[in-house]
Amino acid sequence: MTLSADALAEIAELRATEQPTRRAVVPAIEAILFEPLPVLDQGFIRVVDYMGDDAAVVQAARVSYGKGTKQVSSDRGLIDYLMRHRHTTPFEMCEIKLHVKLPIFVARQWIRHRTASVNEYSARYSVLDDGTYRPEIGQLAAQAAHNRQGRGEPLDSGMAEAVLDRLDTSAASAEATYRWLLGDAPGEPGLSRELARMVLPLSAYTQWYWKIDLHNLLHFVALRADAHAQYEIRAYAEVLAQIIEKWVPVTAAAFRDHRVDGAALSGKGLAVVKRLLAGEQVDASNSGMGAREWRELATLLQLPTTPREPE
Amino acid sequence: MTLSADALAEIAELRATEQPTRRAVVPAIEAILFEPLPVLDQGFIRVVDYMGDDAAVVQAARVSYGKGTKQVSSDRGLIDYLMRHRHTTPFEMCEIKLHVKLPIFVARQWIRHRTASVNEYSARYSVLDDGTYRPEIGQLAAQAAHNRQGRGEPLDSGMAEAVLDRLDTSAASAEATYRWLLGDAPGEPGLSRELARMVLPLSAYTQWYWKIDLHNLLHFVALRADAHAQYEIRAYAEVLAQIIEKWVPVTAAAFRDHRVDGAALSGKGLAVVKRLLAGEQVDASNSGMGAREWRELATLLQLPTTPREPE
Amino acid sequence: MTLSADALAEIAELRATEQPTRRAVVPAIEAILFEPLPVLDQGFIRVVDYMGDDAAVVQAARVSYGKGTKQVSSDRGLIDYLMRHRHTTPFEMCEIKLHVKLPIFVARQWIRHRTASVNEYSARYSVLDDGTYRPEIGQLAAQAAHNRQGRGEPLDSGMAEAVLDRLDTSAASAEATYRWLLGDAPGEPGLSRELARMVLPLSAYTQWYWKIDLHNLLHFVALRADAHAQYEIRAYAEVLAQIIEKWVPVTAAAFRDHRVDGAALSGKGLAVVKRLLAGEQVDASNSGMGAREWRELATLLQLPTTPREPE
Amino acid sequence: MTLSADALAEIAELRATEQPTRRAVVPAIEAILFEPLPVLDQGFIRVVDYMGDDAAVVQAARVSYGKGTKQVSSDRGLIDYLMRHRHTTPFEMCEIKLHVKLPIFVARQWIRHRTASVNEYSARYSVLDDGTYRPEIGQLAAQAAHNRQGRGEPLDSGMAEAVLDRLDTSAASAEATYRWLLGDAPGEPGLSRELARMVLPLSAYTQWYWKIDLHNLLHFVALRADAHAQYEIRAYAEVLAQIIEKWVPVTAAAFRDHRVDGAALSGKGLAVVKRLLAGEQVDASNSGMGAREWRELATLLQLPTTPREPE
Repeated sequence: MTLSADALAEIAELRATEQPTRRAVVPAIEAILFEPLPVLDQGFIRVVDYMGDDAAVVQAARVSYGKGTKQVSSDRGLIDYLMRHRHTTPFEMCEIKLHVKLPIFVARQWIRHRTASVNEYSARYSVLDDGTYRPEIGQLAAQAAHNRQGRGEPLDSGMAEAVLDRLDTSAASAEATYRWLLGDAPGEPGLSRELARMVLPLSAYTQWYWKIDLHNLLHFVALRADAHAQYEIRAYAEVLAQIIEKWVPVTAAAFRDHRVDGAALSGKGLAVVKRLLAGEQVDASNSGMGAREWRELATLLQLPTTPREPE
Repeated sequence: MTLSADALAEIAELRATEQPTRRAVVPAIEAILFEPLPVLDQGFIRVVDYMGDDAAVVQAARVSYGKGTKQVSSDRGLIDYLMRHRHTTPFEMCEIKLHVKLPIFVARQWIRHRTASVNEYSARYSVLDDGTYRPEIGQLAAQAAHNRQGRGEPLDSGMAEAVLDRLDTSAASAEATYRWLLGDAPGEPGLSRELARMVLPLSAYTQWYWKIDLHNLLHFVALRADAHAQYEIRAYAEVLAQIIEKWVPVTAAAFRDHRVDGAALSGKGLAVVKRLLAGEQVDASNSGMGAREWRELATLLQLPTTPREPE
Repeated sequence: MTLSADALAEIAELRATEQPTRRAVVPAIEAILFEPLPVLDQGFIRVVDYMGDDAAVVQAARVSYGKGTKQVSSDRGLIDYLMRHRHTTPFEMCEIKLHVKLPIFVARQWIRHRTASVNEYSARYSVLDDGTYRPEIGQLAAQAAHNRQGRGEPLDSGMAEAVLDRLDTSAASAEATYRWLLGDAPGEPGLSRELARMVLPLSAYTQWYWKIDLHNLLHFVALRADAHAQYEIRAYAEVLAQIIEKWVPVTAAAFRDHRVDGAALSGKGLAVVKRLLAGEQVDASNSGMGAREWRELATLLQLPTTPREPE
Repeated sequence: MTLSADALAEIAELRATEQPTRRAVVPAIEAILFEPLPVLDQGFIRVVDYMGDDAAVVQAARVSYGKGTKQVSSDRGLIDYLMRHRHTTPFEMCEIKLHVKLPIFVARQWIRHRTASVNEYSARYSVLDDGTYRPEIGQLAAQAAHNRQGRGEPLDSGMAEAVLDRLDTSAASAEATYRWLLGDAPGEPGLSRELARMVLPLSAYTQWYWKIDLHNLLHFVALRADAHAQYEIRAYAEVLAQIIEKWVPVTAAAFRDHRVDGAALSGKGLAVVKRLLAGEQVDASNSGMGAREWRELATLLQLPTTPREPE
């Protein structure tokens, strides 16, 4: 992550100023406010503003005049209850605004979450010169054999080096073409920015302001910090999870228990669990489930299972 | 507006506490934070939290590292430009949270705005005892003759008194029935709250927490502070407009010019204006418009017009 | 449910007309199209239009040129997979439009689902004369002792009769007041409709057109057909569930297994299940859970449990 | 636009099948259903499904039992009234589903409209091989001098040829890199698809299913068929506008008059118009407007104006 001296100065200036407020204040977030938290090789997340705290969730659930908090223990219980029973609206009462620098292919996954506000840096209006994403060598993996949308074994190191070389060459070539198209020296086209950008690769970094409420942020993190999410967006989701821990620690704990560490059982899955608890022998053949769903359940419950046949 | 001593004490306690923050602070909003601003006879709006200010709109539009503001004049110009060209996403970057007490029939209009977060006081869970709305006598008007959804002439004062009497009797009777249904003294049913509430009238007051971004708040105010809106929701919208003036004065000025004081011309309307400017005589018969649309245009432009025939 | 002769004639006329279409057609929905399906004493749900079928879910998930269906079995597997892994967007590709008549207190719960389109009958514009909801005697229950938002024991029959009498009197009185306020005979106020309506009780029936996609409809049904939902909205949700069974039977089966019959385990709950499966003795005291969460889990898994202490 | 023989066969098969339905049918849309309508060099829009017609707008506005239509003329008047007064919910009652092939940089603008459902072809799951966008030579224009986000003068033909050559080389090179990364022949990396895709340029074509209601579709077209929109997305918006004309011709006419051909006047603009109509002389200096807003108004009203100074 490299920020210009100007950007660093602007950030330092913002951080230097404090004013009194009557609103809820979260010191752990104030401590990191405006600071770029690094993600991937050149990306970042900056918390730019926030509204509310754990007590605001309680306050909204109770539609009260004052702060939510009567006693910390009862607030904790209420928040856990709300999370457990999927009462989502109180969690909508907290809001956060982030400045994010991220590769375009990550941005394209990210934007599918529609319940947020976004202002993206415009490559119609300005020149995009934020570099391109270069994976760490350990991230270069072959297509997974059993999962059509995932990574399998890491490439061996010679091949990985060859891939990085090719990625570097490809990015440099696209960048040179972009610059030439934009150029207005004699012999250069001076093509409009809105057209020139189309040669940029999906690995190019972009930036945006992104504002979302806590409920929808938790949903984003649940999906994107999941092991099935692509590594690159997961890297962002993990930083978001750390921000949530600082911002609303009670909500974060309930979220971890009920969403991250928990699991959904189907009706069939629940029936299997009850049979197992009753001492019955259940395996793939008598589970009433498809092969894939059975494997998922056996993994979840750490049941002894037979090796998988090639598909 | 009558608040319990407990509620007033909770509000006073919240107002007494200040803490430092690095976030944008708006002193004019801090000054009214948590205070109930009266609306109608017993309703109120309380600003409970807010995020962002005029500079946050600029900051998001520019996707900048620091504060939006370079120079006040250029910020003002940018905000006016954004409003004029309906670039709405930068205005989504500010957020406000309100505690509102309002009659149920107003709540039913209000809730039609879907782009907000709401936590309402639950009459399944608790007893609703916030009173009922009693209009001021000057608000009692006959059904409009030419507008199927509006008020016409005020009732004469004798009739108006009779109406108020009947409203009072009706509200008292509903209230007594509600209390009796809920009652668990001997001979009283102790009916579940979720059922008992169905005898409450639409004039009963309810409460909610309502959180919305600035763009959607402006849209709400544009529709609900309009002369065509029902008086009762307009009373709330006007208080919201005053809050916006305090919160984001530059945005509020642009909003007034482009939404409140402005008007939309249809293609036909624009053609009429051009013909008039070219010195042509245009009236209902050669305007190319329907009678109703012509009257609307003539009123907007203060054209001399002929009296309306009975419809 | 009583419909006017005019309404019935309009419905009959619509049902009598058929035209050819190239779109997906679902005969089981065509069979009930436009017909009012009764709910509660005077309410109904009418399917007014629909778009898509099970194959449309598959088609969207595959972004294919043709119909989704290759083989019924693989479609079924894909839909189950999508539901199991909460891939929600393919289910957004089907849409349904309903005409619903429902009591206002039900409408107020219903409208909290924001991801739908609504056009409600306007009591500003027209007179509301659709009657009021009168519960069946068996539905009259006391406030639940252990659940602040539910019903407990049924009222005894004498008390229940007394409640019905009082509900009837209350409704009739509100109706008479409404009529008098609207009346424009000599001596009657002729009050504007938008004001007169405020004396109507929450039990008054209203009507609306409601359009929603399949994903959001399933979410609505999951919440509102749940045992914790108020009986009156549950009655509507159950008719919606029957409509879904006719419309998209494969999706409906996956929904039943994964949402209705399934359950969410927290991290703590999952740990308990693993310990039980390993033969360990687990009870409230060593479960790591709060008392209420433990009871919920014990009920779900049908564990032997000790009677509840009064709270 | 080149479709595989398989795709064409699937489309032909869908088009060959007709079934009876009781729903509203729009013959002009049936006529083009499933057919790819070409956009740009290789893109297309296919109407895949639709729900409702002009009468459905009327039906919802009236919350009626039957079809909207009493008389064509009154329906036309009602739809024009709804559009004029921005009553948007009745237009949400019609829905359309499209299959669209479009360059990624267009997709990134398009997706900013959040009120739609999208299923995109996944380049994590499958290989993206839909080609890249190659502009027509006449579309190659220099950066605009006075508008930071637009095109100015066309490039001269020699330069334009040079640009096309460079675009072709750049696209071919990215494509070759992508293929090599994916390749699993000896000496090729067999990199996971989710990583390999990041070398693709923003000009690469993608595909998605896109479903939206009529209100939001009109809003999309109003913004994206506008002269300020980038040519490439405008090309899609214009095809969408043609589809709307076929689908809901009455709504389309009202939309054209009130949105496309109409204009918004600010309060200042309206004041200028009134002064002009009153015979007053108004120019930039006494308009009360900024220079840019004045120019916009003068252009709109075709006022005589003085040449613009260099900025």
